[in-house]
Amino acid sequence: MDEQRTDVSSLGEFGLIDRLTQNNETRQAGTILSVGDDGAVIDQYGKQCVISTDLLVEGIHFDMMYTPLKHLGYKAVAVNLSDIYAMMATPTHITVSIAFSNRFSVEAIDELYEGIYAACERYNVDLIGGDTSSSPKGLIISVTAVGEVAPDKFATRSGAKKGDLLCVSGDLGGAYIGLQLLEREKRIFLDSPQVQPDLQNKTYTIGRILKPEPRADIVEWLQEQDIMPTSMIDVSDGLSSETLHLCKQSNLGCRLYEDKIPVHTETRDTALEFNIGPSMCALNGGEDYELLFTINPAHYDKLVLNEKISVIGHMTDISEGTVLQTKGGNTHKLVAQGWNTFDQEKY
Amino acid sequence: MDEQRTDVSSLGEFGLIDRLTQNNETRQAGTILSVGDDGAVIDQYGKQCVISTDLLVEGIHFDMMYTPLKHLGYKAVAVNLSDIYAMMATPTHITVSIAFSNRFSVEAIDELYEGIYAACERYNVDLIGGDTSSSPKGLIISVTAVGEVAPDKFATRSGAKKGDLLCVSGDLGGAYIGLQLLEREKRIFLDSPQVQPDLQNKTYTIGRILKPEPRADIVEWLQEQDIMPTSMIDVSDGLSSETLHLCKQSNLGCRLYEDKIPVHTETRDTALEFNIGPSMCALNGGEDYELLFTINPAHYDKLVLNEKISVIGHMTDISEGTVLQTKGGNTHKLVAQGWNTFDQEKY
Repeated sequence: MDEQRTDVSSLGEFGLIDRLTQNNETRQAGTILSVGDDGAVIDQYGKQCVISTDLLVEGIHFDMMYTPLKHLGYKAVAVNLSDIYAMMATPTHITVSIAFSNRFSVEAIDELYEGIYAACERYNVDLIGGDTSSSPKGLIISVTAVGEVAPDKFATRSGAKKGDLLCVSGDLGGAYIGLQLLEREKRIFLDSPQVQPDLQNKTYTIGRILKPEPRADIVEWLQEQDIMPTSMIDVSDGLSSETLHLCKQSNLGCRLYEDKIPVHTETRDTALEFNIGPSMCALNGGEDYELLFTINPAHYDKLVLNEKISVIGHMTDISEGTVLQTKGGNTHKLVAQGWNTFDQEKY
Repeated sequence: MDEQRTDVSSLGEFGLIDRLTQNNETRQAGTILSVGDDGAVIDQYGKQCVISTDLLVEGIHFDMMYTPLKHLGYKAVAVNLSDIYAMMATPTHITVSIAFSNRFSVEAIDELYEGIYAACERYNVDLIGGDTSSSPKGLIISVTAVGEVAPDKFATRSGAKKGDLLCVSGDLGGAYIGLQLLEREKRIFLDSPQVQPDLQNKTYTIGRILKPEPRADIVEWLQEQDIMPTSMIDVSDGLSSETLHLCKQSNLGCRLYEDKIPVHTETRDTALEFNIGPSMCALNGGEDYELLFTINPAHYDKLVLNEKISVIGHMTDISEGTVLQTKGGNTHKLVAQGWNTFDQEKY
């Protein structure tokens, strides 16, 4: 049908989004922040409203062979709330649309919604609407989350300043290792269905991929401490990719120290079993849903008291580039090396 | 995997939604109206915000053989805006998420977005975010629309009163006939690819299915005339189904007059070619995206001046049932006889 045919893979994910949004116009006076961040911000009569949306597709974002439906429902909500928190906002409402083939029974859909409601309860948000539909194949889940924030108190990706500390919550790479474990067990099961899965002592990393928690606690702590991050993003695509987003959108360079990247013991040990460098899991693995943010160094004394936050680098002039300093002291250019060429991207 | 397996078809679309939302709790003080209407209403610091969402799945909601991508993008937005208007609100913002297989080129996705942006321009809304992803098969589009309304000036499905006039905008059944024409041409093409499609003089009905327009004009007129409908819904599933929604949620009966149902000449003539009763197309065909609403009879004098609005019946006590009076003067119980057992439903 097309006279010209360009493969999406030739543009890449961010190229496609740039292309699709390049002529996007703003008509509404209430549009404070549009495409290009974790969420959009609209002014609602003095206070501000943050909106974010995600689409999860079976076979792309999850594999029903090892994803319990209750966990999937929980995760579908959690990853959206993570985007709202990544704006330093508080989620209040969600809508959930699903489409599913006749392979799914009512009981299966019940389980999915048990997880959805569990996440709503845990994070105090209301499910206010949605859409259900059949699908020719597989399960599709679309969640839109709405949050609130005091006027202009939201954090974007573009506000970092030279000299700011680069910080990350929790630890990284666990979700990627959890995924490798599940994929390994799936292969073993497909080869030898009688073999029982061997996932003892792997509960942390398996939990990271199957049931991520958005970092509401970090946002609340920063608000309590009156620390306003200069920029913030959630880590869905790996530390490299997210750091480069902050650098690009803030027009800065950075220096990131490999030995400062927080990695859980189980993640590290399991990565070594797989012959993967633990730092590589953190840098290039996705789905950790931690918060990556920059803060003014004046807040350093407060920060070090919170053991859930690691200072992993600092922001530099754009002329200094985006630098990763390895444990051995060498420096490399930081590159976003996602595991998929075209998986998904928010805009 | 399930111990018990109940087919979704055994519950039906509304049964499933009732089941999934029966334990839904409201935690946020700002939640004014939750699941069960065309849109949800949340309080945003004095004014109110209406949210609605739809998921469109290739092979269920559209057939790429006869759906130009630009029209599809336009329609995906239009049907969401229709839900916002059906709350008597004004749409302001949308998010759009898409997933697509590698069958779709960049140029194809460009076309889809041309339609999306055209609808944004036509209805003065801002595209503020979304998500792009690959899919194992086909195209999936999820749109969430946000609108605004003065406090408590939104119309629900549940406010109709006994004696209210039942009104509908425009005409009905055209989209269903348009779909029959496209399906017929598809069958002919698949049998004999050299035959040119014969769709001359069918532009109105084809346009109704491929490029519906939400009735912004009706909402604006009602607001200008200071007529507040007591209940309102958009006609996406056929007049019978939507009328029954208003009756059920307002706890009333109704009397609907077949001879008052507005049907376009082209719709009527083509329906007769297909040996279908034109009224059946209006009552049971979907996707007309007109507005069905009830108003206090005191407004009758104003209403009759607007030729875009037809009074098609009135609301009665619940004990009188939901009655369709035919052209011949007979009465039947109004039943929702959708063309699909489980297609899609908003909640």
